[in-house]
Amino acid sequence: MAELETFPNPRPERDYEIEIVQPEFTSVCPVTGHPDFGTIHVSYVPGELCVELKSFKLWLQTYRNKGIFYEAATNEILDTLVAALAPRSMTVTGEFSARGGVSTTIHCRHDGE
Amino acid sequence: MAELETFPNPRPERDYEIEIVQPEFTSVCPVTGHPDFGTIHVSYVPGELCVELKSFKLWLQTYRNKGIFYEAATNEILDTLVAALAPRSMTVTGEFSARGGVSTTIHCRHDGE
Amino acid sequence: MAELETFPNPRPERDYEIEIVQPEFTSVCPVTGHPDFGTIHVSYVPGELCVELKSFKLWLQTYRNKGIFYEAATNEILDTLVAALAPRSMTVTGEFSARGGVSTTIHCRHDGE
Amino acid sequence: MAELETFPNPRPERDYEIEIVQPEFTSVCPVTGHPDFGTIHVSYVPGELCVELKSFKLWLQTYRNKGIFYEAATNEILDTLVAALAPRSMTVTGEFSARGGVSTTIHCRHDGE
Amino acid sequence: MAELETFPNPRPERDYEIEIVQPEFTSVCPVTGHPDFGTIHVSYVPGELCVELKSFKLWLQTYRNKGIFYEAATNEILDTLVAALAPRSMTVTGEFSARGGVSTTIHCRHDGE
Amino acid sequence: MAELETFPNPRPERDYEIEIVQPEFTSVCPVTGHPDFGTIHVSYVPGELCVELKSFKLWLQTYRNKGIFYEAATNEILDTLVAALAPRSMTVTGEFSARGGVSTTIHCRHDGE
Amino acid sequence: MAELETFPNPRPERDYEIEIVQPEFTSVCPVTGHPDFGTIHVSYVPGELCVELKSFKLWLQTYRNKGIFYEAATNEILDTLVAALAPRSMTVTGEFSARGGVSTTIHCRHDGE
Amino acid sequence: MAELETFPNPRPERDYEIEIVQPEFTSVCPVTGHPDFGTIHVSYVPGELCVELKSFKLWLQTYRNKGIFYEAATNEILDTLVAALAPRSMTVTGEFSARGGVSTTIHCRHDGE
Amino acid sequence: MAELETFPNPRPERDYEIEIVQPEFTSVCPVTGHPDFGTIHVSYVPGELCVELKSFKLWLQTYRNKGIFYEAATNEILDTLVAALAPRSMTVTGEFSARGGVSTTIHCRHDGE
Amino acid sequence: MAELETFPNPRPERDYEIEIVQPEFTSVCPVTGHPDFGTIHVSYVPGELCVELKSFKLWLQTYRNKGIFYEAATNEILDTLVAALAPRSMTVTGEFSARGGVSTTIHCRHDGE
Repeated sequence: MAELETFPNPRPERDYEIEIVQPEFTSVCPVTGHPDFGTIHVSYVPGELCVELKSFKLWLQTYRNKGIFYEAATNEILDTLVAALAPRSMTVTGEFSARGGVSTTIHCRHDGE
Repeated sequence: MAELETFPNPRPERDYEIEIVQPEFTSVCPVTGHPDFGTIHVSYVPGELCVELKSFKLWLQTYRNKGIFYEAATNEILDTLVAALAPRSMTVTGEFSARGGVSTTIHCRHDGE
Repeated sequence: MAELETFPNPRPERDYEIEIVQPEFTSVCPVTGHPDFGTIHVSYVPGELCVELKSFKLWLQTYRNKGIFYEAATNEILDTLVAALAPRSMTVTGEFSARGGVSTTIHCRHDGE
Repeated sequence: MAELETFPNPRPERDYEIEIVQPEFTSVCPVTGHPDFGTIHVSYVPGELCVELKSFKLWLQTYRNKGIFYEAATNEILDTLVAALAPRSMTVTGEFSARGGVSTTIHCRHDGE
Repeated sequence: MAELETFPNPRPERDYEIEIVQPEFTSVCPVTGHPDFGTIHVSYVPGELCVELKSFKLWLQTYRNKGIFYEAATNEILDTLVAALAPRSMTVTGEFSARGGVSTTIHCRHDGE
Repeated sequence: MAELETFPNPRPERDYEIEIVQPEFTSVCPVTGHPDFGTIHVSYVPGELCVELKSFKLWLQTYRNKGIFYEAATNEILDTLVAALAPRSMTVTGEFSARGGVSTTIHCRHDGE
Repeated sequence: MAELETFPNPRPERDYEIEIVQPEFTSVCPVTGHPDFGTIHVSYVPGELCVELKSFKLWLQTYRNKGIFYEAATNEILDTLVAALAPRSMTVTGEFSARGGVSTTIHCRHDGE
Repeated sequence: MAELETFPNPRPERDYEIEIVQPEFTSVCPVTGHPDFGTIHVSYVPGELCVELKSFKLWLQTYRNKGIFYEAATNEILDTLVAALAPRSMTVTGEFSARGGVSTTIHCRHDGE
Repeated sequence: MAELETFPNPRPERDYEIEIVQPEFTSVCPVTGHPDFGTIHVSYVPGELCVELKSFKLWLQTYRNKGIFYEAATNEILDTLVAALAPRSMTVTGEFSARGGVSTTIHCRHDGE
Repeated sequence: MAELETFPNPRPERDYEIEIVQPEFTSVCPVTGHPDFGTIHVSYVPGELCVELKSFKLWLQTYRNKGIFYEAATNEILDTLVAALAPRSMTVTGEFSARGGVSTTIHCRHDGE
């Protein structure tokens, strides 16, 4: 199974921000079984580690056939990235496509100690 | 009649924000009897409960043939959601279509205790 | 019940085109009972008669609580306007909001004899 | 009162097209007395004469407090310009602001002999 | 002459914001006599009173044939609305069309005591 | 397995056009195994039958875990819809997301006899 | 003074189209002495010669302090380019900034023999 | 030579903001002699005086054939306006067109005492 | 060196269109040695062969450090693709970034026999 | 090799901001050898020195065939500019094109002492 890979932050003495946008997120609604679609935005100030982009993409693909709600998915992506990277701070936003005309966006933030 | 349903917040120990946009709100002007149209934006930091999206959509549809002014509708939607969810904070914005060239937007905010 | 009103074409000796756009069309799905939303575009070359805009708006509002499919609604709007106006030609387009991610547009045309 | 002024076409041996857009047209609804707003587009192939732009702007301002319907205004602007310029061909489009959610556009064309 | 009408704020115990946009403002330049065009934005936190929208539209139409500079018009609209509504705070912005390529916007704010 | 359902064309005596857009198409690259994403546009003049939209959505979801190239998928969608609907004419366009910076769109057309 | 330079068409046996857009054209109104601004679009099918882009830019700069009307400028640019390049066909469009709210675009075309 | 003209602030007892945008600024590069193009934005809180717009436009035209760098021009425009108007505060932004693919914007601010 | 690879057209009995867009084309100006940037659009009706997208991307990268004019590059890309694919028809458009404010687009077309 | 050139800040007694945008940055991925593309934004408050724009453009071109990661490139551009200019503060943003659907932006900031 896909795992998040990391590489050493090339400039750890500076607080700077890395934004990553993946507009091709898809998972499955645990109630209806229908696919959900969305865009995942990650923004973080790295500590010692940065996430390797290709492994990030492959890891997000593990949600493709997984049943999960929007609120849980966005929080879980944040928790997993925080565990892997120990960032100084991180925000994850999940912007999901409209269902029945109604669209939803979830914004979660973690501040490192 | 449609009722708001809730589900337990999957990550209550974190303050995070849920935004919901419904661009298909419609009600009736209590003076002229003509239909009004608008977009309702809800943004909140959940406490113990989140609103279930399908019940939210159905509940907003109960305004379809109801006579109500913009200012009252937007405040009432906020009050009803606050009563049902007890959010840490919540904003409701009603963005209404132009009438006679003039368009109106109402922004209401509730801060929990 | 609302009826379409007409007025005499002020320049019948010239073939010219009148476009009308109503972005606030709503009807009800005959299967699910849920509201549908769309934009109705009418474009015609008037013969002896033009449609009066306010009566057109009120007449379209009669679909508000009517159960009808997109294909039937768009064709019926064209047929009713053709019967009332006897235009030299007319196009009606119904552009309906996405349901389950899928959006639909219907284009119908009538050529007068 | 403002009159349309003309100047000789600097290149009458070539068929070429002049487009003019005035987004600040306003007149008055003859029924309600309320102001109407719109954009007038003129496009023509000049014959011997071109319209002088400042006089065109001033002449369109004569509609400011005049009661006239959209269909009549657009046709009248075309007829007046055709009479003044004898163009090889001319199109006038009046694109009017929404009233009661409904917006209207009128396209008229004259082909010279 | 048109007068501003008001109605009681339906939720005076909450500080919330009402935005109104009228893109069809027109007045006359007091120097050249030429028409000016602009968009008026009003945003306020109501006290005991809200402005009734139709009377607001009609009252703004009284500027149609009045000679007034942009700076004076925007301040005067704010002063008149403040006198009529006694809002907790109010901002009026006048965004005027380009003249000679140059466009101008005026932002005025009143804070109630 | 999902099957395309149809319903009788409500106005078969008129040639009119039905457009359907599904921006949430996804399949799998048969070479790399990575997911592909795209938008499927269908436009047709119905004969005796129209496609039922919900079954269309479910049927397109059968591509979710299927390995297929863009050119084959677009042609296969057209062939399957033509077989099910016998339309007077039909166009299918598959607009696929960029890979390595390069994006691809396939346009296929069928004309009925 | 700046002169148009040319270079041999690298593929004269094929009819193909070259489009050039210069959004920084400026000249002077011969009546008021005020500067005019616009975008010049040139599109042509080359014969034996193509225009060298830097010389084209410098040559258009010779209009900077020249008094000339829009109609004359656009036709003159076409005539000069046709004389220098003998293209198989050429279109020149001058799209000029609004003056007094009114904007103007001139489209001229030459077809080679 | 063109001079900046002023008029008395009609509402000096209120701090309000006046924004002016001129998208037709042009000067000359002192090194290459080539024309530069840009948009000048001025935003200020007037003290006793406001700048008259037509004189502002004419005064900015004095840069048309003047050799000056972007940084110097933007600062000089701010210094001249501050000297003429003694505003409570003023910002001048010069947004210059790309050269060699690279575009530049200069933001300067003056705070009155 | 990178070579164009092909694969058999999956539906050769149908005339359909394949569009490919590469917005990351870069080459070098043969006169100044400076890099040029552009977008290459290819659109073709395949005969027996389709171009494999990854090899197409790698082959376009061979222009990265090659000195070539826009007109020659666009024609050469068309000629090479036609030689490799023998399409029923093909259009190549090169849309190049502005230099000195002036931008250029080249449209070339080949019709197979 | 290209070197950054500077010129004296024309207004060192004022803190003002200079923004530079280069949308034509390209380098090479050190792992795959494939080209990367992006836009570099620099924004700074100059001290005694400003960067000369042409030398900046040429210096950024030295990355064209250099293998470097996004995070390292953006930090290195900031460090080099800070060393050359000793700005009061500076931000460098690298906004890189999508790879595998995922796009990345790096924001770095330096505050002078």
